[in-house]
Amino acid sequence: MTATTAARAPRTAAATSTVAPTPEPLSTESLRAELARRFAERSAAMARLGPGMAHLWELAAEHAQGGKLLRPRLLMAAHDAMSEATGTTAASQAEVLRLASALELLHFAFLLHDDVIDGDLLRRGHLNLVGTLSAERETGRTREDSSRPTPEGLHRGQTGAILAGDLLLSQVHQMVARAEVDPPVRTALLDLLDEAILVTVAGEHADVALSDGTEVADLDTILTTAARKTAAYSFALPLRMAAALTDGPAAWHPVLDRAATHLGLAFQLQDDYLSVFGDPARHGKDACSDLREGKQTAIIAYARLTSAWPQVHEHVGNRGLTPEAAQDVVGALRSCGADRFVLGLVAEHREALAALLEESARSQAPLPAAVRELLGALDAELVGRAS
Amino acid sequence: MTATTAARAPRTAAATSTVAPTPEPLSTESLRAELARRFAERSAAMARLGPGMAHLWELAAEHAQGGKLLRPRLLMAAHDAMSEATGTTAASQAEVLRLASALELLHFAFLLHDDVIDGDLLRRGHLNLVGTLSAERETGRTREDSSRPTPEGLHRGQTGAILAGDLLLSQVHQMVARAEVDPPVRTALLDLLDEAILVTVAGEHADVALSDGTEVADLDTILTTAARKTAAYSFALPLRMAAALTDGPAAWHPVLDRAATHLGLAFQLQDDYLSVFGDPARHGKDACSDLREGKQTAIIAYARLTSAWPQVHEHVGNRGLTPEAAQDVVGALRSCGADRFVLGLVAEHREALAALLEESARSQAPLPAAVRELLGALDAELVGRAS
Repeated sequence: MTATTAARAPRTAAATSTVAPTPEPLSTESLRAELARRFAERSAAMARLGPGMAHLWELAAEHAQGGKLLRPRLLMAAHDAMSEATGTTAASQAEVLRLASALELLHFAFLLHDDVIDGDLLRRGHLNLVGTLSAERETGRTREDSSRPTPEGLHRGQTGAILAGDLLLSQVHQMVARAEVDPPVRTALLDLLDEAILVTVAGEHADVALSDGTEVADLDTILTTAARKTAAYSFALPLRMAAALTDGPAAWHPVLDRAATHLGLAFQLQDDYLSVFGDPARHGKDACSDLREGKQTAIIAYARLTSAWPQVHEHVGNRGLTPEAAQDVVGALRSCGADRFVLGLVAEHREALAALLEESARSQAPLPAAVRELLGALDAELVGRAS
Repeated sequence: MTATTAARAPRTAAATSTVAPTPEPLSTESLRAELARRFAERSAAMARLGPGMAHLWELAAEHAQGGKLLRPRLLMAAHDAMSEATGTTAASQAEVLRLASALELLHFAFLLHDDVIDGDLLRRGHLNLVGTLSAERETGRTREDSSRPTPEGLHRGQTGAILAGDLLLSQVHQMVARAEVDPPVRTALLDLLDEAILVTVAGEHADVALSDGTEVADLDTILTTAARKTAAYSFALPLRMAAALTDGPAAWHPVLDRAATHLGLAFQLQDDYLSVFGDPARHGKDACSDLREGKQTAIIAYARLTSAWPQVHEHVGNRGLTPEAAQDVVGALRSCGADRFVLGLVAEHREALAALLEESARSQAPLPAAVRELLGALDAELVGRAS
């Protein structure tokens, strides 16, 4: 019964408060335990394949555990709220917990392949799986040493991340394909997973094209790419899976998809804002890493239209950007109003979400009040963090 | 009826001849058409996601079409022979053709991620997907230009290959998860797919560790790695899927798995032999690419035990190895008997396969004669090619 109590807790928090709900400890704990089971149930198979695979899997399990579990928590809370409204669910609470853990595996698989593609070695201020495997290849390196690894170390790290990502992507499909629900529901879940992967891959593909200059970095393209990378698997997938499990009416689907887009964009834009203008000590990102990587964000696209661009453009994608020079660029971005512009976009998407939820409340097949509250609380949680 | 006729043809050929059967045109044609449908059925979704994704998918479809279709042909022929023996099948001929095409997608997905890991730009003497995407990034490069791309070009190519591989790996799971067969058969197919991916990933992981020297390159490790990389998804998976579809007795399973290992090793060892000692014009591989990449093969492991090693070892993994120096190394390898050694191992695995099939013929639940003939013909086809 722990799982049931845990799943309901976020909704209660949302219903009684409009400030960001703190992650519910019970829910998070049972999810972490479930996630650990996903790795544990394959440990024996990995050990059979030798110490190299056993070690890779152990490290993957360790690195998968650092997240905020946003996606699985969202699936569980939405499932709980929707099943109460429809009075039905196709899955046991244990099965919902399993599917929720699959969403975290999917997230981690995407992170692994993204880190290879972006050449990243760090996540949340520590070495990621690529960085950790690279460091092991080199005597004397520690996990906290963020200097560039040797080519051999990097190759070892990226190989491990590609292969672990492949295993996890396979595992997610296997889990959904075996979900203990009625066949039509299982097919709906498979459809949703398939679509989410397709859209996310397209987002990542376009993101790289934006960074390397083969796609024109206008604001529209940047926002479409951000929505694909963030909204599809992080928000639309958990919400739509919950609706599929609880037999939610088809009228909910476009509302959930649009809510997911607003949440995904608000989240990504807030993240872009914090990366450049936030306090690195609070959100754990290097202040100038986005600038150094030449990431094409809404901030950069806006600056390109202003008189600040001459001061900015030569530093975008400058791998040797010093912290001092970065501060000058941040100053120029502030003076041209890029900070206000991006916060304005965040506010716009939050307002659009609120309007969408109100509109749904007045419609023929309204989203249940508890789901609307959940989405509102999520908005507050995401946008309120570390700002 | 075309597919049925096509699927049967290889068996007939095998039954009437002990020389390598030529690929059966009808079977190959219907498989190529089926494979093209796998890409075509997702073209609209890719186009919706923009020209970048549409183009990536188009190139992937083109590059997926170059193979000999070994795995799908094996599934179809084995299914045909086994269903005739057991008098039953869980799948329509159209469904078997679909599953067969999924095996080719899986093969291609592995090739894409392998090419990223190995830094390869060529396959069968032409640019692979990584190479083609890289070349597009650079004005004036053609598909036949095999010089190294720029770092930007390589990044573009490897990104495309990682993401296309992810899409294909997902598609394979989706296809097996939706196979129109009874649920227990579908679960058996999912189990087999899961195991094959796990073992193949372990083989690739160990292969990289062997090349970079973090795993000791003894003969035993090299052969285990080769069996995992080659036998599991190329031979065991099609054979065991055919048995699952046709309700073959459990006594067949270990025989099919062992046959797959012998075939996989004979195939891989013959490939190693041809790479070093064969005629590059006939098999399309660069004579010294294995040496240059430092690939740890049975040939190298054997040479390490002989007096030829001082002449050989400094060239293993030498990226600047000239064709002339490579010829000296090949001469040293011949003089120490590495060619005879590896051909001896090939013969050993072929004999072990023959003995296994004879033993099965005398057992309580013998593999059907047509399946034994198919495996024998496959052995001749693989080992006889270009030697």
